[in-house]
Amino acid sequence: MSLTFYYAPQSSASPVHWTLEELGIPYEKVAIDIRAGENKKPDFLKINPNGKVPVIVHNGVPIFESAAIQIYLGETFGVEKGLFPAPGPRRGEAMMWIIWTNVTLGDAVMRVGRNLSEWAPADERNAKAGERGKTDALELLAIVDTALTGRDYLLGDQFSIADLHLASWLEYVGMMGIDYSGLARLSAWAKRCTSRPACAKAP
Amino acid sequence: MSLTFYYAPQSSASPVHWTLEELGIPYEKVAIDIRAGENKKPDFLKINPNGKVPVIVHNGVPIFESAAIQIYLGETFGVEKGLFPAPGPRRGEAMMWIIWTNVTLGDAVMRVGRNLSEWAPADERNAKAGERGKTDALELLAIVDTALTGRDYLLGDQFSIADLHLASWLEYVGMMGIDYSGLARLSAWAKRCTSRPACAKAP
Repeated sequence: MSLTFYYAPQSSASPVHWTLEELGIPYEKVAIDIRAGENKKPDFLKINPNGKVPVIVHNGVPIFESAAIQIYLGETFGVEKGLFPAPGPRRGEAMMWIIWTNVTLGDAVMRVGRNLSEWAPADERNAKAGERGKTDALELLAIVDTALTGRDYLLGDQFSIADLHLASWLEYVGMMGIDYSGLARLSAWAKRCTSRPACAKAP
Repeated sequence: MSLTFYYAPQSSASPVHWTLEELGIPYEKVAIDIRAGENKKPDFLKINPNGKVPVIVHNGVPIFESAAIQIYLGETFGVEKGLFPAPGPRRGEAMMWIIWTNVTLGDAVMRVGRNLSEWAPADERNAKAGERGKTDALELLAIVDTALTGRDYLLGDQFSIADLHLASWLEYVGMMGIDYSGLARLSAWAKRCTSRPACAKAP
């Protein structure tokens, strides 16, 4: 078995990094220096033609897209560790929350980033669209807050990679100036997740 | 076994609809009238609090997010039908392309829609951001074009739900005015996928 993880700190590789630490499986870490453009070099583009982290190479096969990597690691290594459901509807729910984070919540959060932050060119921004993104993101997070009613974790009483993935994303949501502190269940749950020792090992 | 599929024609429910027809499994179809606001009614919000199609309910458990539904149907019913890989790195690749479609390609295509089409409020648009979305979408589609070098389908010589999902999305890409006809392998592959009989049964 060989498993290589290409990452950069404080990027969308962070949730995958956290998963690898939770799983406690052997893997090789390769830091990619985004500022130095290592992600756009030919050798890296052979692994991920999108020029992005994270990407893993498992037994010679590259897999990109953080949500896909999470589900893949979950079904390959997570079931026996109690971090991912066995096949069945419960696994469907885990995949749903992981993908919802990147697709639906991600869309709203990216609209905030692209329209209100410095990393997008000024003449491509629209402040109103950014404010709409904030409103939408908070409405979406309220859905999670409601889903957590009467349960400690998204799938019930057991922590899973679905919790980890969304909780990791919330760090980025906070950085984008989206204040979800009014959502009490969500805030308590996020703290419960990020206080796990494996989280601290995955910057 | 009970499987209910909530959908609207020509929406992100279409790729799931196509998958259900490819699988040939029994399921109940429920059309949701988006214009009449059926997706925002309390009964529907209990199934999908996001108020969107598609959503499936399998043996009592609702699963939303089209990419999650595709992977779920693939692993539950698709392996024995030859439409989804068995567990292993090949399955990881299938999940990667399905999720890449909604997350990475989806982000670029949605930027086109939100900034250049009539469905977004005029004062929330930015034409330059829309044009950038078009350029990005074409660069992303070129990655798929390259990936199809020397193979008939994304995973090799066998059609899978990964092909179906991306090919279905390309219809929407075309509607957004993104002209990918210069990508010969992609265009030929899309035609190969959408000419399957099951595609015609899933508007």
